[in-house]
Amino acid sequence: MSLNPQYEDIGKGFVQQYYSIFDDPANRANVVNFYSATDSFMTFEGHQIQGAPKILEKVQSLSFQKISRVITTVDSQPTFDGGVLINVLGRLQCDEDPPHAYSQVFVLKANAGTFFVAHDIFRLNIHNS
Amino acid sequence: MSLNPQYEDIGKGFVQQYYSIFDDPANRANVVNFYSATDSFMTFEGHQIQGAPKILEKVQSLSFQKISRVITTVDSQPTFDGGVLINVLGRLQCDEDPPHAYSQVFVLKANAGTFFVAHDIFRLNIHNS
Repeated sequence: MSLNPQYEDIGKGFVQQYYSIFDDPANRANVVNFYSATDSFMTFEGHQIQGAPKILEKVQSLSFQKISRVITTVDSQPTFDGGVLINVLGRLQCDEDPPHAYSQVFVLKANAGTFFVAHDIFRLNIHNS
Repeated sequence: MSLNPQYEDIGKGFVQQYYSIFDDPANRANVVNFYSATDSFMTFEGHQIQGAPKILEKVQSLSFQKISRVITTVDSQPTFDGGVLINVLGRLQCDEDPPHAYSQVFVLKANAGTFFVAHDIFRLNIHNS
């Protein structure tokens, strides 16, 4: 496989689709379908898990309902195995919590004509030091 | 190749080494040695380039001398080809500019017993919207 020239559209399209599901409380658990049963990694606020079942557990454990989200930038790069690396910067507000900037990295891997999320790293941009 | 169990140490060690070179004005251009002549991508504030020669040009075009940098978090994940995905959050101040939060994503690829930077995405965390 080689570089996918559509990487930018794929990255932007994925981010839109992923968050439209994640940000809908009734639909949120369906983001699990983006991940592989065994080969996906998620690091959520420094806590690392592997595989769709654990990722589903994590998503279902999130206590907020409503998310207001504003995407600031989406930077995508093609990977040499036909996938896409995506870096998202944005801001979000969960329920009535204070709003926070965040960053989220995704690596999409090509598989049988579609993509799955092989890597997902989420961090609120909180600088305490 | 498979998952490298040392991914966390590799990620943290790389970040320390990379920035110790980048943040030294006399040494900065040597970061080019982390990149492949042809197969490395860099996206710097939304501007994408490919290959060490162009990356060197970009690094040499940066007008600041002094950088003060504080790393907030380094999240690493192993990739199935033996590499490491790294997400860095931090804050930096260039010369007398205002300080900014930033995020930087690296993908290290294993090659002949060492690693090169296959992907590098840098963004100041500036949310104007």
